[in-house]
Amino acid sequence: MNERNTLKINNFGHLEIGGADAIELVKNFGTPLYVMDQAHIENVCLAYSEVLNKEYGYGMVAYASKAFSCKEIYRIINSLGLGADVVSGGELYTAKCTGFPTEKIIFHGNNKSEQELIEAVSSNVGIIVVDSFDEVDLLDKISKNANKIQTILIRVNPGIEAHTHHYIQTAKIDSKFGFSIDSGEAEEIIKYVSTKSNLKLKGLHCHIGSQIFEKQSYVLAVDKMTSFYKHIKETLCIEFDILNMGGGFGIWYSDGDAKTTVSDYADYVKLIATELKRNVEKKGLIKPYLILEPGRSIVGEAGITLYSAGNVKEIKGIKNYLAINGGMFENPRFALYQAKYTVKVANKMMDKGVKTYTIAGKCCESGDIIAEDVLLPSVERGDVIAVFSTGAYNYSMASNYNRNFIPPVVMVKDGVARYVVKPQTYEDLVRNDI
Amino acid sequence: MNERNTLKINNFGHLEIGGADAIELVKNFGTPLYVMDQAHIENVCLAYSEVLNKEYGYGMVAYASKAFSCKEIYRIINSLGLGADVVSGGELYTAKCTGFPTEKIIFHGNNKSEQELIEAVSSNVGIIVVDSFDEVDLLDKISKNANKIQTILIRVNPGIEAHTHHYIQTAKIDSKFGFSIDSGEAEEIIKYVSTKSNLKLKGLHCHIGSQIFEKQSYVLAVDKMTSFYKHIKETLCIEFDILNMGGGFGIWYSDGDAKTTVSDYADYVKLIATELKRNVEKKGLIKPYLILEPGRSIVGEAGITLYSAGNVKEIKGIKNYLAINGGMFENPRFALYQAKYTVKVANKMMDKGVKTYTIAGKCCESGDIIAEDVLLPSVERGDVIAVFSTGAYNYSMASNYNRNFIPPVVMVKDGVARYVVKPQTYEDLVRNDI
Repeated sequence: MNERNTLKINNFGHLEIGGADAIELVKNFGTPLYVMDQAHIENVCLAYSEVLNKEYGYGMVAYASKAFSCKEIYRIINSLGLGADVVSGGELYTAKCTGFPTEKIIFHGNNKSEQELIEAVSSNVGIIVVDSFDEVDLLDKISKNANKIQTILIRVNPGIEAHTHHYIQTAKIDSKFGFSIDSGEAEEIIKYVSTKSNLKLKGLHCHIGSQIFEKQSYVLAVDKMTSFYKHIKETLCIEFDILNMGGGFGIWYSDGDAKTTVSDYADYVKLIATELKRNVEKKGLIKPYLILEPGRSIVGEAGITLYSAGNVKEIKGIKNYLAINGGMFENPRFALYQAKYTVKVANKMMDKGVKTYTIAGKCCESGDIIAEDVLLPSVERGDVIAVFSTGAYNYSMASNYNRNFIPPVVMVKDGVARYVVKPQTYEDLVRNDI
Repeated sequence: MNERNTLKINNFGHLEIGGADAIELVKNFGTPLYVMDQAHIENVCLAYSEVLNKEYGYGMVAYASKAFSCKEIYRIINSLGLGADVVSGGELYTAKCTGFPTEKIIFHGNNKSEQELIEAVSSNVGIIVVDSFDEVDLLDKISKNANKIQTILIRVNPGIEAHTHHYIQTAKIDSKFGFSIDSGEAEEIIKYVSTKSNLKLKGLHCHIGSQIFEKQSYVLAVDKMTSFYKHIKETLCIEFDILNMGGGFGIWYSDGDAKTTVSDYADYVKLIATELKRNVEKKGLIKPYLILEPGRSIVGEAGITLYSAGNVKEIKGIKNYLAINGGMFENPRFALYQAKYTVKVANKMMDKGVKTYTIAGKCCESGDIIAEDVLLPSVERGDVIAVFSTGAYNYSMASNYNRNFIPPVVMVKDGVARYVVKPQTYEDLVRNDI
């Protein structure tokens, strides 16, 4: 497990999350169980906004809520003063249910529906990030009908694609998202938007990738974006006053990833802020309002999923399968991306690893695996299996595949645990069945 | 599209499913929409059971409901006289809601929970397929407490792994499912079960793969299973009276697959029945009750998903992205398996293909693709995009990822369409949020 002061091994040799003994959590809430460490979420959020404030002084951290969306996370995010990025009518609705200030909401998406755009405009969403010519027309019409001037950004591709520990620079971007700067398409849509009376284009948005550890890619992206801001200023006499640099900061999942601490996350912000100040000055631009959109790094490591160990099947000379009572229905990331996770036995944290297990789910599908070849103490039925860094893109991607229940989510802080998403019931599974 | 008499191009040049114009369906039910062709489901089911009856005369076709589970499918399956295979408490609950006769239910799973086993036993499920030593103990205890003798099968691995157009024979099976015949593990668990007073072991179950077109693999599997039945009879004096050969029959998704018709499906049954009769006679066995468990082949081709075309993004020299209002949240099979689908423009069925599109979803994720490089007529916003063979493992795997709605399901027959799964609402998305 990754070091932090809200994650411990206690005197019973049990895993302790946010002051709560994992084994007690299982007794009280059952398994499978998504556990979220609220203090860690808060620490990361505050680090982000404090550093942005200190190093740049003019901007907003907006939580990319697609990573983990439920009412309570918008409440927590709002209480910490952050904005939120949403990608659907459903996320917007959820945020609004909690009274989240909609002027601090940024609405993204490569193919928003007309209905979603109508809801975004009528909800007074602060910024809509536009991603196609069609959408420009549609949103202008909707804004006109609503008698509003909608603030927008345009999603562009700066030609930097970052992946974990490397990046590529390319003028040829193959993506359903954004408009290429290098090909001239970004400039074309900027010109096009300028003709629209009910849209106020205030700047650009880019997002260079996910799970990025190579900080140099952000330096390049800031350089590219500000150079383009300068170019637009000089050629179109448009001076943008917002720059949205997206997110993508890498988190720790397993030994293959860098160990990350709260201060590592702050370093991304510091770097982007410093580079932006330097570039703005050098290129003679007005200082834009800087928006950053971390998602995974805010909730990812905060989440730990707890399971009960079920059948252990030792296939001689091949593999030991340890079946847990979850699987791809509540964590599809191995099935989707062969994602690597760290796994521990929460009630045997002091015991040495003696056997290698492949952690299999309960779905009727061979590919239903959570982690391969994990060294663990000898596991017996009923042991509590903890999978780390499951706070992002687990609950949010969960399904009722095989008509299994989506596990509940508990938020833990100072040893106190409470449901933030209730357990499903059989009635939930057939609610919409005729 | 694959030929069948319930799928047509009508005089308007529109796709017609089960007698209903796809464009009318979209007008009445919106998009995205899962459409299921009831007549095709019925035709396949009846072909399976008629051939089983005619060629073997002693057995049951059980629909593998993990492929598509909702109340209505159990009603349809039951009305046709088939049994059902379930893999969770949720599927069992859904089937029971419709009054499905539980004695015709077979309960599968590599890691059933104690609660699920209790529910299965108390529901008088016909057969439970046991998949571990632990489970033998647990189920015996549960049956004892319920004062019942539970009929069980054991899942075994015959050492034949079939994949689409080829198969391998191996004594080394790397699977979380079943017990290897070749390694002796299957025999061990059979012996172990014999010691349990509240379990009645009536036979074995195998399932050799998915999306299988190579029929020879079933011939080999029947040979292997009956040889093992003979071995068990001779060494343990146990004569099994049920044989469950599972499913896995391949369906048509795209040009890479064989064209399949209802009679092709019937051919699998005929072959298995013929081979089983031959082997039983040759090996001096009693004729076992034959269970077959097709899932995908019953509902897969019956399903077609209809979308509205949204943004089209033409990236010069690279790719044309056609964004639809669905995506990996309602069809994750490309993201999971790089599955290939056939795509058509439902309102331009007579138009020639002129442009190659990559069909992208609306999720904020680059991997959110439905199909790559599809030749279509020129597509405009609002065109109706049809993706074929989506009846299996689409609705059943659907999630609210990005807080998008899981699309509703309509069943169409003789031109009449009706909801079988209602549309979700925003209220559904936050129902369990605290």
